[in-house]
Amino acid sequence: MNELPLPRILGRDSGLYIDHYELTMAQGYFLGGRKDTPAVFDYYFRKIPFEGGFVIFAGLEELLATLQEFRFGETACNYLAHLGFDRDFISYLESFRFSGDVHSVEEGEVVFPEEPCVRVEGNIIETQLVETLLLNILNFNSLIATKAARIRLAAGERLLVDFGLRRAQGLGGIQASRAAILGGFDQTSNVYSACYYGLESSGTMAHSWIQSFDDELTAFRSYAEMFPDRCILLVDTYNTLKSGIPNAIRVGLEMKERGNQLTGIRLDSGDLAYLSKESRRMLDEAGLNDVQIIVSNQLDEYVIKSLNEQGAPVDVFGVGTALATGKGAGALDGVYKISMVDGTPTLKVSDHMKKSNLPGRKSIYRFRDESGNFVADGIALEDEPEFDFICHPFEAGKKLDISGYRKEKLSNKVMDHGNLLLKRSEVAHIARRVRSGLGDLPVEHKRFMNPHIYKVGISGKLLDLRERLRNEKMKKYR
Amino acid sequence: MNELPLPRILGRDSGLYIDHYELTMAQGYFLGGRKDTPAVFDYYFRKIPFEGGFVIFAGLEELLATLQEFRFGETACNYLAHLGFDRDFISYLESFRFSGDVHSVEEGEVVFPEEPCVRVEGNIIETQLVETLLLNILNFNSLIATKAARIRLAAGERLLVDFGLRRAQGLGGIQASRAAILGGFDQTSNVYSACYYGLESSGTMAHSWIQSFDDELTAFRSYAEMFPDRCILLVDTYNTLKSGIPNAIRVGLEMKERGNQLTGIRLDSGDLAYLSKESRRMLDEAGLNDVQIIVSNQLDEYVIKSLNEQGAPVDVFGVGTALATGKGAGALDGVYKISMVDGTPTLKVSDHMKKSNLPGRKSIYRFRDESGNFVADGIALEDEPEFDFICHPFEAGKKLDISGYRKEKLSNKVMDHGNLLLKRSEVAHIARRVRSGLGDLPVEHKRFMNPHIYKVGISGKLLDLRERLRNEKMKKYR
Repeated sequence: MNELPLPRILGRDSGLYIDHYELTMAQGYFLGGRKDTPAVFDYYFRKIPFEGGFVIFAGLEELLATLQEFRFGETACNYLAHLGFDRDFISYLESFRFSGDVHSVEEGEVVFPEEPCVRVEGNIIETQLVETLLLNILNFNSLIATKAARIRLAAGERLLVDFGLRRAQGLGGIQASRAAILGGFDQTSNVYSACYYGLESSGTMAHSWIQSFDDELTAFRSYAEMFPDRCILLVDTYNTLKSGIPNAIRVGLEMKERGNQLTGIRLDSGDLAYLSKESRRMLDEAGLNDVQIIVSNQLDEYVIKSLNEQGAPVDVFGVGTALATGKGAGALDGVYKISMVDGTPTLKVSDHMKKSNLPGRKSIYRFRDESGNFVADGIALEDEPEFDFICHPFEAGKKLDISGYRKEKLSNKVMDHGNLLLKRSEVAHIARRVRSGLGDLPVEHKRFMNPHIYKVGISGKLLDLRERLRNEKMKKYR
Repeated sequence: MNELPLPRILGRDSGLYIDHYELTMAQGYFLGGRKDTPAVFDYYFRKIPFEGGFVIFAGLEELLATLQEFRFGETACNYLAHLGFDRDFISYLESFRFSGDVHSVEEGEVVFPEEPCVRVEGNIIETQLVETLLLNILNFNSLIATKAARIRLAAGERLLVDFGLRRAQGLGGIQASRAAILGGFDQTSNVYSACYYGLESSGTMAHSWIQSFDDELTAFRSYAEMFPDRCILLVDTYNTLKSGIPNAIRVGLEMKERGNQLTGIRLDSGDLAYLSKESRRMLDEAGLNDVQIIVSNQLDEYVIKSLNEQGAPVDVFGVGTALATGKGAGALDGVYKISMVDGTPTLKVSDHMKKSNLPGRKSIYRFRDESGNFVADGIALEDEPEFDFICHPFEAGKKLDISGYRKEKLSNKVMDHGNLLLKRSEVAHIARRVRSGLGDLPVEHKRFMNPHIYKVGISGKLLDLRERLRNEKMKKYR
C-alpha cells in the first residue's frame, strides 16, 4: 500500500493548510504566556445532509496521518515572517509537532447530530491550529461516504462504479473516490485514488473511441480484438437501438465464436429504463444473456431507485457528479468547538439553544436491542459510565429509559500524545463496517423521504452541567 | 511567487490523475498502430450554473502548468503493470510528454454555452490522456470563479473575504480560494492558497478565543493589546447587543486613548440586518464611526443582496460554504469532445440535438457595439475569418446580422507542441480582466432571476458542415 495522499500532497508545509485566524490566535496564546494551557475541542455536526436519517463518519485515517505530519517547514515559516507574525512565535512553529490526544468513533461508523465524534485534547495552541484541517477532512469525507451509502441503499446488490473525477471539486476528487468506496461503491474510474488508497479501478470506453474509426462496427470489433477479456461497448454514439445494440450483438457473437465473452454494453443517454429493457430483450434474443448492461448519465440515489422500481434490467450503475460533489448538500456542516479550558468546562451561549455546545469531556454510547438493532445513542460525561436514562438535548423533561438495552462505547482513544494507537485499515475493511452498521440501523431511519429521527440524548449529569453554566453566563451577560 | 500547487501536488505521477478508460483507449490506439494519428478535442459546457447568465472561465494557468508536468513516473508505471497494461505501452508512457497544441480563451474571460473555450490538438493518445485532468481543473475553477463573480455583483464595492476552507470539498479548497479571488473576492482566510498563489490572507478570531478567558471583556482587551494594528472583535459569544458590542465599545475607546484604532467587530449569528444596524448605531453614538462591521454565517449572493437592499451597514462580508462549494450547482457540466480525427471533422449524433458536438477546428469571436458592450459571440471554422451573420445553433433559420459590430477573436494559441506561449499572470491581473469583462456585459445578463440569454451563434459554413455530417450519419445509422 502506498502513502496516504493527503500528508504526501500537503508535504512539508502542511501547517499552512489553515485559516489565518488560527495562527493569529495561536500567536496570542503564545505571547500571552498561555502556550501550555490545556484545552479540549469537539467535532460534531448539527444537520444531516440530503434530508437523510444518518451520516457515515469518514476521514479519520487521513486526519490522523495528517496530524502526525503537521509541520511548518521553511516555506511556511518564511511566508509567516513575510505576513508579519512574531519571530519568537515562528521559531516555536519551526519545531512544532502535534502532540495531543485524539478520541474518536471508528471510521465508517453510523453517526448522528450533536455527537462529539472526535475529541481533541492538548495545549490550546495545538488544539486550535488543527481546526481547519480537521474540519476540511472530516466534513468532506463524511459527506461523500454518506452520499455513497445512500446510493448503495438504492442500488441493492448491483455493482456501483464511481465516475466522478471529471466533475469533482478539483483535487477533492482524490478524496471523493476513497469515500465513495468506503460508503458502499465497488469500483472507481479514478486511477490516482485507486493507486494510493488500494481501490479497484475500472473503465469502459468514450465516444471518442467510436468516432476515431470510420464506422461503429469497426470501432467495436477493434476494441473486442484488443481487449477480449474485458470488453464493454458504448452503444449510444449514433443510434442506440438501430445501430449500437445490433453492432454490439454482432461483435458479441463473433467473440463467442472465438471462445470469448462480451462483458457488457453501456448506455449513456436517453431514457435509461426504456433503453435498458429493449437492450436486454435484444441481447437475450441473440443468446447473449450474460452480457451486462451498464448505465450512466446524471445518476443519483433517486434515479437509481426509480430505475429499479421500473424493473430496469441494469447490472452496473456508473455514478459521477452527484456522488463526487455530494449533490443536494455540497457540505456537511461539522463544527469544532472548545468544551474545556484549563480543566474547566466551557459553554458558548447563543441566542439559539441549538448553537450552544456541550461542555466538558464526553463519551458516546450506543444502545441496542436484543437483536442488535440501534435504539438510541447517549452522550455522557467521561467520568459517569453508568446511567439509566438519557434526556432530550433541547426539549426539557423529555427522557428515555435505556436501562434495558445493551450498551457499547462508540468513542475511544486513537492518538496519545501525538502517537497513533490505531492500526491502518484497508478501505475495504472500513466499507464492511459501514455495511454492518447500516444493517443494524432500523429501516425507517434509512428511507429518503422524511426519515424517522434517530434518538440522541444526553446524560442527566451532562444536562445539569450545561444548565448550570448556561445560567451563570445568562446572569453575567444579560 | 511559489510553484503552482497542482503540478507540485500531483508530483511525478500526475499521469495517474486520469479515468481508467482513457488509459485503456490509449493502449488501444497504441497497439492498433495509431499512436501518431492526429486528433482535435474541444472543451465546452452546455448549461450555465446557478441559473445565471454567464460563466467566468478559469483554471487555464493551472491546466497548462499541469500539462507541462504530466508524467508517468515509477509509481505510476509499476501500478499500471500491476493492473495488467501492456508492457510496450507502459514503456511508451515512461517517456511520455504532452507535446500538443492548445488554443484557449484567456483565463478570466466571460464565456457562454457551446463555446469551445479550449481546443487541444496533438496525437490521439496525448489528446485523450489529458481529458479528465482538463475537465477536473476547468470545470471546478470556472464554477467557483463564476460563483465569486455573482457574489461580487451582489456586494457592490464592499470587501469580500473567502472563509470557505473548512467546508470546502477537501483539497478542492486549495483551488477554490484562488478562483474566489480571481472572480472578485478581496481576501481569503486560506493561508495555504495565499502562500502558493500570492493572494492576500486575513482573519479575525473564533469563539474559542473568547471562551479561553474568564470573561468577554478580558478576552477583548487581551487581543487589543496584542494586536493593536488589526483588531476585529467577535461579539456574539454570549449576547451581541447587551455584552459583545458594549464590551467592544469599551475596548475601542481604550484603544483610542492609547492612539490606536479598533479595526472592526464581527457578527456571526442572529439577524444580521438588525444586528448590524443596532451595532452601527451604538458604535457611532460612542464616537467609533470608523470601526468596521464584518458579517459572516451562511452568506451567499442572495443573502448579501437582501442585506444591501435592507440598508444593512456592513463593511465586510465573510463568505464560506456557498462560495467554496459553488452552492446551487456543485459542478459545471463542461465536456471534452473529439471534433477531428486524422484531419477529418467528426460528429456524435445523439437523439438530442443539444448533445451533438460542433465538428472541425473552430475559433470564437466576440461582437461589441460602439460603446464596447458585448452583443453576441460567434463560432466559426478556423479558415473563415470573415462572416456577416451568425446562425442559431439549434433553431433552423434564425440568424443575426453582425456585420456592423466590432469583432475580436477570443481564442488564441497558448501552447505550441507542449511549449507554453503564455506568460504566467498574477491572480490580481486575471481578476481585473473579470471585472472589465463583466463591466462590458449588459446588465440583463447579470441579474439573478431569469437572466436574458446571451446570443451565441455559429457561422453559415460551420452550420453547413454540421448538417452535412449529420445527414451522412443519419443515413448510415438509422
